[in-house]
Amino acid sequence: MADESRRRRGRGGGGAARRAERSSTQVETAKVIARDIPTLTLFDDAALDRIEVAAETVLEEIGVNFVENPAALDRWREAGADVQGERVHIPRGLARKLCATAPAKFTHHARNPEHSVEIGGDNLVLAPVYGPPFVLDLEGNRRYATLADFHDFVKLGQMSPWLHLSGGTVCEPTDIPANKRHLDMLLAHMTLSDKPFMGAVTEPERARHSIEMCEILFGTEFVAQNTVMTSLININSPLTFDSVMMGALEEYATANQACIISPFIVGGAMSPVTVAGTLVQVFAEVLAGIAYSQLIRPGAPVIFGAFVTSIDMNSGAPTFGTPEAAQITAGAGQLARRLGVPYRSGGSFNGSKLPDAQAAYETANSLNLALMSGVNFMLHACGWLEGGLVASPEKFVMDADQLGILHRLARKPSVSDDDLALDAIREVGPGGHFLGCAHTQANFKTAFWRSNLLDYRPYETWIDDAAPDTRTLANRKVRKLLADYEQPGLDPAIRDALQDYIARRKSEVADAFS
Amino acid sequence: MADESRRRRGRGGGGAARRAERSSTQVETAKVIARDIPTLTLFDDAALDRIEVAAETVLEEIGVNFVENPAALDRWREAGADVQGERVHIPRGLARKLCATAPAKFTHHARNPEHSVEIGGDNLVLAPVYGPPFVLDLEGNRRYATLADFHDFVKLGQMSPWLHLSGGTVCEPTDIPANKRHLDMLLAHMTLSDKPFMGAVTEPERARHSIEMCEILFGTEFVAQNTVMTSLININSPLTFDSVMMGALEEYATANQACIISPFIVGGAMSPVTVAGTLVQVFAEVLAGIAYSQLIRPGAPVIFGAFVTSIDMNSGAPTFGTPEAAQITAGAGQLARRLGVPYRSGGSFNGSKLPDAQAAYETANSLNLALMSGVNFMLHACGWLEGGLVASPEKFVMDADQLGILHRLARKPSVSDDDLALDAIREVGPGGHFLGCAHTQANFKTAFWRSNLLDYRPYETWIDDAAPDTRTLANRKVRKLLADYEQPGLDPAIRDALQDYIARRKSEVADAFS
Repeated sequence: MADESRRRRGRGGGGAARRAERSSTQVETAKVIARDIPTLTLFDDAALDRIEVAAETVLEEIGVNFVENPAALDRWREAGADVQGERVHIPRGLARKLCATAPAKFTHHARNPEHSVEIGGDNLVLAPVYGPPFVLDLEGNRRYATLADFHDFVKLGQMSPWLHLSGGTVCEPTDIPANKRHLDMLLAHMTLSDKPFMGAVTEPERARHSIEMCEILFGTEFVAQNTVMTSLININSPLTFDSVMMGALEEYATANQACIISPFIVGGAMSPVTVAGTLVQVFAEVLAGIAYSQLIRPGAPVIFGAFVTSIDMNSGAPTFGTPEAAQITAGAGQLARRLGVPYRSGGSFNGSKLPDAQAAYETANSLNLALMSGVNFMLHACGWLEGGLVASPEKFVMDADQLGILHRLARKPSVSDDDLALDAIREVGPGGHFLGCAHTQANFKTAFWRSNLLDYRPYETWIDDAAPDTRTLANRKVRKLLADYEQPGLDPAIRDALQDYIARRKSEVADAFS
Repeated sequence: MADESRRRRGRGGGGAARRAERSSTQVETAKVIARDIPTLTLFDDAALDRIEVAAETVLEEIGVNFVENPAALDRWREAGADVQGERVHIPRGLARKLCATAPAKFTHHARNPEHSVEIGGDNLVLAPVYGPPFVLDLEGNRRYATLADFHDFVKLGQMSPWLHLSGGTVCEPTDIPANKRHLDMLLAHMTLSDKPFMGAVTEPERARHSIEMCEILFGTEFVAQNTVMTSLININSPLTFDSVMMGALEEYATANQACIISPFIVGGAMSPVTVAGTLVQVFAEVLAGIAYSQLIRPGAPVIFGAFVTSIDMNSGAPTFGTPEAAQITAGAGQLARRLGVPYRSGGSFNGSKLPDAQAAYETANSLNLALMSGVNFMLHACGWLEGGLVASPEKFVMDADQLGILHRLARKPSVSDDDLALDAIREVGPGGHFLGCAHTQANFKTAFWRSNLLDYRPYETWIDDAAPDTRTLANRKVRKLLADYEQPGLDPAIRDALQDYIARRKSEVADAFS
């Protein structure tokens, strides 16, 4: 039906023209990571039962706060919750029952249908870093991010063969007023990329603007019938749902647009200092959040989110790539699959101030364990630095290159006769080598994954090239990608309409920087 | 019986005195990694069956070469193989049958019984880098390694809380004649460390020397009844067993000392360019090698080894941390468990020339997937650089720190009532924080793993400390560890006897540097 609607729109409006105009020089992007390897079973059923029972106890006995949101309290009261002030006590079983209408999978459409992704099931889709106010720029300066930086990240995302989404707030364009920058961010995703993107959540009104801009880009009818944004709704852990985030959720869910409903937890600070205790709280919070989304609109697409890090008790700093973060990622994945909804976690998490070895160890730990944990949607999959305070174009291309590994690692290798290669072993025999044999000649181009960034050259060649470290290689690569970038085609009428819309919205209010 | 023998030796000789003399300021080393999480099931039984059948076909139809080793050919002939020249055709089922006497687990004893390790089952033990001729030293120079470097690596290994073995050729002490350096290397492991170590394999005679030195260190009777070395026997892939390595294997197996029997494969060069084809060859080679060890002495302890990397077909360079390397590691682990013997794979593998982000990404990929693959013995677990050409003390401490993560990640988190932490969630409630609550106070010291190297400080503090990258932090840490190092105690009579032995051996032959 969605496809049908799309075709109708194409015939009736500018869709066909838009598609014809699409640039033919785009980078090929892999369709989703389709995993066929098992997920990590960290907890057995009895352990998961204990976590679930405890989470239900939290919801019923302790409850959750819906702050400054009388309509939400009314909705909960009507659904059968016990509301005391702003505290919502959710009887055992109610939240889970409400969650039953949330879909197990949904399609997030891109304006280029080749880039539309199915979220859930055995799929993993990757989106870039989200939220940093700072950048570590190509000259090595750590400074506030600007819209020009934002544009660069969107271009890098568009050019990555491994990144499925253009993302959301890839960095905060702090040179644009806070109450207007969402418009410029969306315009960048809509015009500099043709991959799927995320909507604004910082005010309910900005969510409405996001939907209205999508109606210009995709057509009103298409947006009414399809999901064209997946947006990030954070829970104020512990157990608090604020009116800004819930307001954005209400807008999106009403419009059938997808939301990630996600605790944001530094374990030990915003949750108990144990893996199991954190999972209890994560599950309670997500149950309440997804249940609430279904009170707004049964069937609204949502994702079980878990952004959870451990803490360094010496400094109070969040820590990344740790075993406990991995265990929570794995456990929350098991809970999400029990609940039957897509799962968001993992990312290029690290606490380093530089794109150095610390950044890479912590990032690789996070990426590997997220894959093993059955994550369906990975936000922050590349570009994150310094605990999320900083977005780095160098780290962006370093991580994006590593994401290629996940695509391959998610698949079982074939054991066909050709892959078993008995003929090759016969041909070569003891003491020979395989470089020139027929099987190698037939398969070498696609046999092994190859980095497009890391250095495989002999030492002497590398020395002759000024002995670059990974950061230096990444710096060169970012400059080359930005120089080579080509904008994907878009109907000029749509572009003009988007620009008009933004100008109108901007003229309605005075600039505000907070 | 082993313990009994040990006690007798203690009463009869210097054992008790030696133990009394042991330094009390040693670093605590974790006993093995005892995993209770599932391993990655990459291949189903049908796929493993196909690989096994193909491997048996390789052994029967193509065969393996035992080069310049008439005694080995005789042994195979007697066992029922079809020997043609140096080619041994092993009838389907014979190798597997011979492997049946190889133990599923064995204890590798250290001179400090606290550091003895059980190898196999659900245990993972970690040993440092093995074999590099070069070091990247603390001044940043890449140069030939010396015995002084070797000593430094042994000291760093002794001081690591996460490294279970002192290792073997942690680097090649190229300033010592090639035909004598094994003596100095063994002396270093025996005197600068009290962790388990590996024996020489570069000539059968050097294996005998290793055993004789162990008889001095542990007592002859103890060595006769216990395994005190695990040594690395590489197969010349494809399908070739040379007389040097087999000679060392024969010495060790006869003496009931353990060997890792390990293909050394750059996939696409020394094996087919597919994951499945490489596994066929690995399994054929290991079956033949382990079977041969059991022809020498049924019950001799052995480990199924798989050192396998992928290749960059553009440059011919081996590549590390790739998805195919991970898949082979996982698949070989499944084959090893089917065979019922301990499994060696994984390590701090990377192709980088520097301890930078490339080194860390590739290393972390290897370490994580090795844990998931159920590796029992991880050689090269820290310190490896540039495809194994270079040992780096900086990388050594960087990797060794990461090994702490594996210890935690291998364990299922508890879901006890205390860990579920309902009381903490009750105490804190919606909107509060957990830093000061009773549960956090009771648990924060041990709750979360914490790096002893990486930088968790705020940006400003880090800037005030000259903004060190990970390599700089590691450089500082190496210098501090070496300054703080204390030699574990050893009976002076034993030390003198070892030194006398070495002097005698050295005086017997002229220096040779190749």
